[in-house]
Amino acid sequence: MKLSNKSYIELEKHFGRLLALREAAGLLHWDASTMMPAGISSSNARSEQISAIATVCHDIISDNKISDLLDEAENLSNLTSWQTSNLREMRHIWIHETAVTKDLIEALSKASMSCETQWRISKVNSDYMTLKPYLGEVLKLVKYSACAKSEALNCTPYEALMDQYTPGLRETTINPLFRDFQSFLPNFLGAVLEKQASEPEVHKLEGPFPINQQRKLGHSFMKMLGFDFKEGRLDVSLHPFSGGTPDDLRITTRYDLNDFTSSLMGVLHETGHALYEKNLPKDWRRQPVGLARGMDIHESQSLLIEMQACRSKEFLSYAVPLMKRAFNFDGPEWDVANIYRLYTKVQPSLIRVDADEVTYPAHVILRYNIEKSLISEEITLDDLPGMWNENMKNMLGIVPTNHKVGCLQDIHWFDGAWGYFPSYTLGAMNAAQLFDTAIRENTTILPSIENGNFTPLYDWLIENIHSQGSLYETPELVKQATGQPLKCGNIKQHLKSRYLNG
Amino acid sequence: MKLSNKSYIELEKHFGRLLALREAAGLLHWDASTMMPAGISSSNARSEQISAIATVCHDIISDNKISDLLDEAENLSNLTSWQTSNLREMRHIWIHETAVTKDLIEALSKASMSCETQWRISKVNSDYMTLKPYLGEVLKLVKYSACAKSEALNCTPYEALMDQYTPGLRETTINPLFRDFQSFLPNFLGAVLEKQASEPEVHKLEGPFPINQQRKLGHSFMKMLGFDFKEGRLDVSLHPFSGGTPDDLRITTRYDLNDFTSSLMGVLHETGHALYEKNLPKDWRRQPVGLARGMDIHESQSLLIEMQACRSKEFLSYAVPLMKRAFNFDGPEWDVANIYRLYTKVQPSLIRVDADEVTYPAHVILRYNIEKSLISEEITLDDLPGMWNENMKNMLGIVPTNHKVGCLQDIHWFDGAWGYFPSYTLGAMNAAQLFDTAIRENTTILPSIENGNFTPLYDWLIENIHSQGSLYETPELVKQATGQPLKCGNIKQHLKSRYLNG
Repeated sequence: MKLSNKSYIELEKHFGRLLALREAAGLLHWDASTMMPAGISSSNARSEQISAIATVCHDIISDNKISDLLDEAENLSNLTSWQTSNLREMRHIWIHETAVTKDLIEALSKASMSCETQWRISKVNSDYMTLKPYLGEVLKLVKYSACAKSEALNCTPYEALMDQYTPGLRETTINPLFRDFQSFLPNFLGAVLEKQASEPEVHKLEGPFPINQQRKLGHSFMKMLGFDFKEGRLDVSLHPFSGGTPDDLRITTRYDLNDFTSSLMGVLHETGHALYEKNLPKDWRRQPVGLARGMDIHESQSLLIEMQACRSKEFLSYAVPLMKRAFNFDGPEWDVANIYRLYTKVQPSLIRVDADEVTYPAHVILRYNIEKSLISEEITLDDLPGMWNENMKNMLGIVPTNHKVGCLQDIHWFDGAWGYFPSYTLGAMNAAQLFDTAIRENTTILPSIENGNFTPLYDWLIENIHSQGSLYETPELVKQATGQPLKCGNIKQHLKSRYLNG
Repeated sequence: MKLSNKSYIELEKHFGRLLALREAAGLLHWDASTMMPAGISSSNARSEQISAIATVCHDIISDNKISDLLDEAENLSNLTSWQTSNLREMRHIWIHETAVTKDLIEALSKASMSCETQWRISKVNSDYMTLKPYLGEVLKLVKYSACAKSEALNCTPYEALMDQYTPGLRETTINPLFRDFQSFLPNFLGAVLEKQASEPEVHKLEGPFPINQQRKLGHSFMKMLGFDFKEGRLDVSLHPFSGGTPDDLRITTRYDLNDFTSSLMGVLHETGHALYEKNLPKDWRRQPVGLARGMDIHESQSLLIEMQACRSKEFLSYAVPLMKRAFNFDGPEWDVANIYRLYTKVQPSLIRVDADEVTYPAHVILRYNIEKSLISEEITLDDLPGMWNENMKNMLGIVPTNHKVGCLQDIHWFDGAWGYFPSYTLGAMNAAQLFDTAIRENTTILPSIENGNFTPLYDWLIENIHSQGSLYETPELVKQATGQPLKCGNIKQHLKSRYLNG
């Protein structure tokens, strides 16, 4: 029968199993970060388990029959649009899995593991030289992988790395956006710093803030956003993250007894990630087209909640009384205005994860420029610390006093996640553009947030982003949702309005 | 090169991956029982993940190349004794995986899942009739599987089921042991009940016993036995169990605010399981020969700790003061003698998991007789409740008032674990025989336990059982450790000495 889509159906079965296995590996990662005893032997055993799953995933995809089935299914003319997109996503997974050999995958995984272990030691001692050969090995293998994938994807090696996290992203998209922001930042930052310096001192909130109350407050805010604890958990880990599956969401945070605000904003951020997963199209559960659309869009969903919605005056006017009640504190420092200023304080600083909304993109652009130059071999690892410090000085006017607060601060390069950094700032840009569209299209969104009601906002996000899964490629998704391609205008507008006119 | 054992080396690689995948599945089970949200969608997703792992495990083993490699390796003449045993265990895994088709495995897994779901409802209503068709489907598929495996193993279908949990166990071994115990029980039980009736009333311990203090006490007892919390955890689950891997042990318990004694003994029991895993031969980690030797030996290690060592007068004389201090209670009911009598109180009862040490084997023998008769088709599911009640009356003199406390009480048959029950009582018999040998061979064991020092006992167990992994088949392991095959004599002697002469 000519019209039969047997090959397509068969592919759905294989990819369904693949994604179930990836979910299993995800749970093993979650457990390693939250529950697993800290000993080295448990972490070695966990690596073996995760690597065994990665190997069978590779075997499933690189089996010749998958290649044949893909070729066959791509010639079918009777697929629905969701099926067609599903097939496109299957091919994308296939390209990334089969472009590299199993040996390279294993070598990279081993090199990353030992580099990461050495990084934890070298970081403490701010010792770049000892770490360099380990990093060199990782970089070498990452380049092999990037080159192999770049041929298969018909793009540059660095683009092939980004493509692992943000499918379809190319330098022609990202360069103008980053250049635009980079030319905007210096004057804007100067103006913001000047404005904030002219204002009265911000009052810090004095703790202690008992962990149990922080946890309860976090839970209540998560529920306010729509998180259902029958379908997920909040736990503690060293580095907060969002994991799990749409029906079993696992987010984490870390608590500081003397500062509840960063944990709380972190919880809201991870909840933004989690609710994106929760609202992905159920009909396409465990199929490639049912997955979230790249890390730039994922990051947009967490940043939209954290930065656009929850650091707004509207939300804080609702939330601050709840914070006060949670810890039974009061005083002028608990005024909404003061807490708003606390949450929007701008200060160029050395550490990316602690950076404010205004200077954060500078940290990302710096890393983007460096990793791109390393992959294209314009610079070598010998140039890395120097380029880091020089760029920090140029963009933020400060220089790290040591490598621990400089080029050794982030885990990404040392555990092999090259090409990931741009997602953060593309996420912030997407968040601004999406939020601006949402509140214009539905004028009840902001007043509702002022009453702790996120339903109108989530209705908009579900309809325009979450329920679309990976039906569209990213530029099309953004255009469908906001009427235009991703631009830098909205984030600039947002920053101006919050930090100069607010 | 004729002497090369390339085929054997290749097999080690495949089975290493297989066992890493099984470890991953084990962690998913642990998480499902301890951490996973209770919703039906999370449990469905988890089933998909575990079943995906089971499928790839089946694929790895049933690949033709494994069969060829096994044939080839079995002709090698230059293997060490550990390698030879490893090969024997690989063949055993291979037989069980390849005797049945993937379709049958999947059908059985689905039938068990829906039967177990129905069981949870029917049990509450004591409703055997509604459940019967679900159980019938499971039984039918279990019989298919048993028949297929019995041909491959050259044994009866029921033996093939037991062989999944206790490799090599045959009815010719088990029948004389169970008959021996069955003929011993009636008079012995009568004598014990008469003796205990003639003694003053046992005082119950009155709570409440705060959960947090129960947990702390459990932790301190686990450490006393040798459990290292850098290599494992204690959590809460509905049904206590021992899971994890040798380097990452995961045991669970459940707490009752008004009774700490059962949780505490449960913790000691599961610690017995866990320390067996911990002390398996490290050189053979993640190889079949490095695994524990069947569930009968596993159960012997938990029961040796719980029943032989920790319910002894020697241990309780050390432990009771710690219990008193933990809860800050005192009074005559906290005398060692009273608590010893509490822990050795005998009372025929309907529920297996609550049964005392004397009547427990009767519960197992009853189930053994019934499941054996169902598999061999001597009886049908219509006869099950009647046979249950009749046997309860014959062996323990009591009759269930409803099926909830009768044939619906245990999960095993409803989730497909046919052939498992005998392990419990074989474990108790092995425990008695091993403990008797240990304390005769090393006379410092009992006095050390009296001081809370389990090192001499564990040194003996590690040398004779744990470090042997699956080097020997079970009868040989028991004979090497105790000088004779498994007999019923030691458990009878133990019970007589504890319950009549104590």
